[in-house]
Amino acid sequence: MDLHNYIKERCELVESRLKHAMPAETEFPVSLHSAMRYSTFAGGKRIRPVMMIAACEAVGGDINTVLPAACAMEMVHTYSLIHDDLPAMDNDDFRRGMATNHKVYGEAVAILSGDALLTLAFILLSSPFLASNIPPERLLEVIHEISSAAGSRGMVGGQVVDMEAEGKSDLDIATVQYIHTHKTGALIKASVKCGAILGGAEERDLASIVRYGEAIGLAFQIADDILDIEGSSAELGKSAGSDQHRGKATYPSVVGLAESKRQAAELLNIALEAIDSFGKEAAPLREIARYVIERKS
Amino acid sequence: MDLHNYIKERCELVESRLKHAMPAETEFPVSLHSAMRYSTFAGGKRIRPVMMIAACEAVGGDINTVLPAACAMEMVHTYSLIHDDLPAMDNDDFRRGMATNHKVYGEAVAILSGDALLTLAFILLSSPFLASNIPPERLLEVIHEISSAAGSRGMVGGQVVDMEAEGKSDLDIATVQYIHTHKTGALIKASVKCGAILGGAEERDLASIVRYGEAIGLAFQIADDILDIEGSSAELGKSAGSDQHRGKATYPSVVGLAESKRQAAELLNIALEAIDSFGKEAAPLREIARYVIERKS
Repeated sequence: MDLHNYIKERCELVESRLKHAMPAETEFPVSLHSAMRYSTFAGGKRIRPVMMIAACEAVGGDINTVLPAACAMEMVHTYSLIHDDLPAMDNDDFRRGMATNHKVYGEAVAILSGDALLTLAFILLSSPFLASNIPPERLLEVIHEISSAAGSRGMVGGQVVDMEAEGKSDLDIATVQYIHTHKTGALIKASVKCGAILGGAEERDLASIVRYGEAIGLAFQIADDILDIEGSSAELGKSAGSDQHRGKATYPSVVGLAESKRQAAELLNIALEAIDSFGKEAAPLREIARYVIERKS
Repeated sequence: MDLHNYIKERCELVESRLKHAMPAETEFPVSLHSAMRYSTFAGGKRIRPVMMIAACEAVGGDINTVLPAACAMEMVHTYSLIHDDLPAMDNDDFRRGMATNHKVYGEAVAILSGDALLTLAFILLSSPFLASNIPPERLLEVIHEISSAAGSRGMVGGQVVDMEAEGKSDLDIATVQYIHTHKTGALIKASVKCGAILGGAEERDLASIVRYGEAIGLAFQIADDILDIEGSSAELGKSAGSDQHRGKATYPSVVGLAESKRQAAELLNIALEAIDSFGKEAAPLREIARYVIERKS
């Protein structure tokens, strides 16, 4: 299969749906709506939405039932990036080669546009037009998965521990694993899980997809850690080695580069094995797993 | 009826439910969960939850069906206060006589605990145990109302316009009204609307409750503006006159104190008329409307 085309086509669907799902830049208050769109359309790779779609298709689901939730997931992800970049957090001036939200709109509007994007995800997921096409119990399940993955026992919890670990020299692997599985892994796992739920997966297939998502969610962040060391600044759109300079908790800093690569490869195998019994509909999910580990940016 | 006892009893139910609905302070990451609880239990008057319960009871609903949503509403309200107080926004050191969240936990954890509280509201509203007692379509409707009221076309939009209006001398009443109906009014209206939805209100009663909520939502903030001028610092738990000093957009600053009082009284009448056909089950809703306009803190 041609992963490049697969991703390109799904991304285009997500882009177009996202554009419709968000208030226009010209809608009052203009600063807020501009800021929300600025970060949402700042060149993100849409990995989470594409994984959600791929999981839906892997269990034989229809892409149209999953698109709104895929957009909601990208809104949650975008809000988390805006807040992560704030002066009180990572204090980043650039992301993907572009000025960060607070550098363009100021800190107050950046905080509020993140708040509004997180909120918009739930506005979208509870929209009456969705409930007419998707069983409401299923929508509630998806809302519960996404909010739980984003909350204090998921992504936000991971972000707090990540911040508190910064600069510490005596981190153990359990702490770094907690950070990675929560800060990054939770949303990725929720993405494929929600894709499978909306695709109408049976219990057993859902459990397989969740195992896949857990493995890839962790592997994704380990690959990110490795990229921070081996990638070039041009490919990354930020300074290579910036995690190291900041004393961020990373796999290579705790277990070394070689062992990090070994564990990423092992997680890839676990992910592929989890969906081994799936047919060719799962080919994109398999290719995405390989891409996540081997990407250069 | 004895409003004092009515509010006291409902508040106790909300307090107890809120305590159960939130992760323990001792749960990892401790800083985050402590910060979330700190602001949630910082002496809030629980006006929105009590109004939601009163609206539910006014249409003959059962208090137990509405308690979780009442807690979710208070979480959304609390998150908004934490973010409003941040240095990049109002930069407040005290609220209700206590140090603000970021003064105790630092700016980063304050931002994230606000994020986590907003998210927790949706975790709670989509919980499987709720969906077993309440029709899922109804829960989706409540999620849609609360998120819409909190988002860029509701509370967050109002906050942005409020910030941008600060210090401007040429504000018109339409702008101040936009700020008040969005920043404060939207959540109050959503509170009574959700209470009525969960109470199983018929279309006509729901529309009446919404009219009540719109009037009281605006009146609530006008009363706040008046209190800022007439209240004592001890009663308010913050410096009296602080809105004035900051050049905040208020009704008195645009239409004067006497006209502000006249409009608040008129809105109270509109609210009471809207639920005039309701029976004695709506007595608390009527009393709360009077209390909102006439309170001293």
